Amino acid sequence: MNQPHVVIIGGGFAGLTCARRLARSPVRVSLVDRRNHHLFQPLLYQVATAALSPADIAAPIRKVLRGQKNAASVLGEVVGVDTERRVVRLDSGNELSYDTLVVATGVTHAYYGHDEWSERAPGLKSIEEALTIRRRFLLAFERAELETDPGARERELTFVVVGAGPTGVELAGTMAEISRTVLRRDFRSIDPARTRVVLVEANDRVLHGFPPGCSDLAHRQLHTLGVEIRLETKATSIEDGRVELTTDDGVETLEAGNVLWAAGVRASPLGESLGECDRSGRVRVREDLSVPGRQEVFVLGDLARVEQPDGGPVPGMAPGAIQMGRHAARIIDREARARRSGRDAPPRDAFRFRDKGMLATIGRNRAVAHVLGRSWGGLSAWLLWALVHIFFLIGFRNRVMVMLEWIWMYVFYERGARLITGERKERG
Amino acid sequence: MNQPHVVIIGGGFAGLTCARRLARSPVRVSLVDRRNHHLFQPLLYQVATAALSPADIAAPIRKVLRGQKNAASVLGEVVGVDTERRVVRLDSGNELSYDTLVVATGVTHAYYGHDEWSERAPGLKSIEEALTIRRRFLLAFERAELETDPGARERELTFVVVGAGPTGVELAGTMAEISRTVLRRDFRSIDPARTRVVLVEANDRVLHGFPPGCSDLAHRQLHTLGVEIRLETKATSIEDGRVELTTDDGVETLEAGNVLWAAGVRASPLGESLGECDRSGRVRVREDLSVPGRQEVFVLGDLARVEQPDGGPVPGMAPGAIQMGRHAARIIDREARARRSGRDAPPRDAFRFRDKGMLATIGRNRAVAHVLGRSWGGLSAWLLWALVHIFFLIGFRNRVMVMLEWIWMYVFYERGARLITGERKERG
Repeated sequence: MNQPHVVIIGGGFAGLTCARRLARSPVRVSLVDRRNHHLFQPLLYQVATAALSPADIAAPIRKVLRGQKNAASVLGEVVGVDTERRVVRLDSGNELSYDTLVVATGVTHAYYGHDEWSERAPGLKSIEEALTIRRRFLLAFERAELETDPGARERELTFVVVGAGPTGVELAGTMAEISRTVLRRDFRSIDPARTRVVLVEANDRVLHGFPPGCSDLAHRQLHTLGVEIRLETKATSIEDGRVELTTDDGVETLEAGNVLWAAGVRASPLGESLGECDRSGRVRVREDLSVPGRQEVFVLGDLARVEQPDGGPVPGMAPGAIQMGRHAARIIDREARARRSGRDAPPRDAFRFRDKGMLATIGRNRAVAHVLGRSWGGLSAWLLWALVHIFFLIGFRNRVMVMLEWIWMYVFYERGARLITGERKERG
Repeated sequence: MNQPHVVIIGGGFAGLTCARRLARSPVRVSLVDRRNHHLFQPLLYQVATAALSPADIAAPIRKVLRGQKNAASVLGEVVGVDTERRVVRLDSGNELSYDTLVVATGVTHAYYGHDEWSERAPGLKSIEEALTIRRRFLLAFERAELETDPGARERELTFVVVGAGPTGVELAGTMAEISRTVLRRDFRSIDPARTRVVLVEANDRVLHGFPPGCSDLAHRQLHTLGVEIRLETKATSIEDGRVELTTDDGVETLEAGNVLWAAGVRASPLGESLGECDRSGRVRVREDLSVPGRQEVFVLGDLARVEQPDGGPVPGMAPGAIQMGRHAARIIDREARARRSGRDAPPRDAFRFRDKGMLATIGRNRAVAHVLGRSWGGLSAWLLWALVHIFFLIGFRNRVMVMLEWIWMYVFYERGARLITGERKERG
């Protein structure tokens, strides 16, 4: 087989889109991921808040690529890339040689030099982390129910969410809402409605990446749900049961048993071996999304630092990643076809992010949308949000199941996946 | 409040049934479990084989008892029972004092003195164990796909199930079936249909607790699915990648990368502090299910050793546990009412197990049933099995979701929950 070999690292939105778009291209595709599943990250907070099961928002990559004859799925972790020899090294010791390399390994949390916080304040990037948050969230109420000291009980029922981007807003809103609805009927000694949810944000508004109109709407909706919002505030210390918050005016200490991290991203370390990186470790790519000086290496998704003509970076959300995946696939396809017919490769197009709107949800029938230059909130924004997210869930089965779970929760005010699993004891 | 306090340890079929049956009784009920959920154990093998999600077969105990005003749910592990002082000690250091105690903590696996096997040959009692089996099952195919040595590849695709009771039969049948159907379309280098599933049983037939007619039917159906059945055979050594099987004729060594344990039970250690136990640690109870000399202590479910008038023990399956839960609740209720109205307690009835039939499933539309003295197999037995299991799934929501998942799998030959989660590396 003389077809060029395209190795794609990372089965997220960018990598998987790129692989699927190459289905009819005269290339061989290998998609490498250390997980066997593609994760629909925008709904991961729903697993963390006990609404959905992991299988509802994840699809085995093998299954997604099943019908695609020119693609193979490889389960493994990439430990290095040798751009001179054009090989990818796997943790199994195997090497994959490539003609074209697509790197889309995404980002993880950044604790700004406080990596010791990661244990106390878990983030939300993987299924395992979502299940950790779910376990801690549900256990907090169980512990409060057994607690006799009012101060300790209050501490158990105080949740601090650091970072008011889409994930932080969704987590805080949903937690406030379900403690006031679903859980309040289930306990005898405590009143879950007295749960305190504090959302901490260093910027001067929530949803900083969204237009200001959306931020205002989200702020009001969070307030209605009882979420305390602290703007221009930083978490400067996280200890067991205690969070220190710092503003320009001074320092406040909150007694809080539960801290969740939704702030800051750091790019996957693979980026450093590919080219020049920005402060968060994103690889600066050319406008065709390839690495300067390495025409055969593309970097996509959250790992890529793409400057748009209007100056701003591409927002680190699914639409940008999907568009980048399509763009790289188009270039690879054109060049492979040109090569096959002995023609010169056509010039490469520049990537342009097309902003089709932004959406963030806050709770049952609460959301904000910014589409076609207009910001609005309320039920219609929530319905649009639900439709868009169900539509983009990969795999028809998942769509049906998630829709059913949502209708169920909507009608019966119920949560399906309220299981505490994993190590039972994490704290004394 | 002067009402007697009934403490129930264990939220399985026996304990939960007992708690719910006491809803209108003049008693206070506390149900203690170290898990927050009741697990529908008969379907746990479906989680292990990637058909259902944990939340489909588990219901939060708090939710189940939500409407029951006289019952409270306590999340905690019981570390001891002081039958003199009538208190239950929890791991949190708290004590619960009781007037009546119901112990239904069930059984765990027995490795017959080879506890070191538990790591290599996981059993199937909890959600965590089911997810471990699911991960190993799916990872075996991933490893085989990357393997170039034919011998090693064959070893990865060899599964040995030790024990041919209902769980072993269900696991072996389902694994054989899905490797021949669902998975075979997804791999490029290996043919999952070449998977070898070996079912090992020390007795002279599969489903030893069932009537011989059922065993014959199940044997034939397993054979059709390609399961190799070794009767009168014991696993005498389990090492990484190798299992030693011993019969009267000699010893055979199987190269097998995956071993699952479905043999042998040992009762929960709490039993020893309550009364005289049998060889597997079950507490010998009187015919009213109370402990000899301790009228206020009942032992129910798998932990109880009940001799029936016909000589046989009660089979360790859900129907027996449920019937025991009802029986104990009836006695407790009658005595509480008598006490309230100042009457003498009525004499206690003896527990009689009513065998309504036995069911075991082997795969998609394959099952065996023994009802009203008749054994039969095939589609009608499978439909009966599916109906009965869906009907008994606690919580209406779970019933609907499980039914939908099954219809989906049946129509599309698909598995919903094919996720590899948890620690990614367990072996080198």
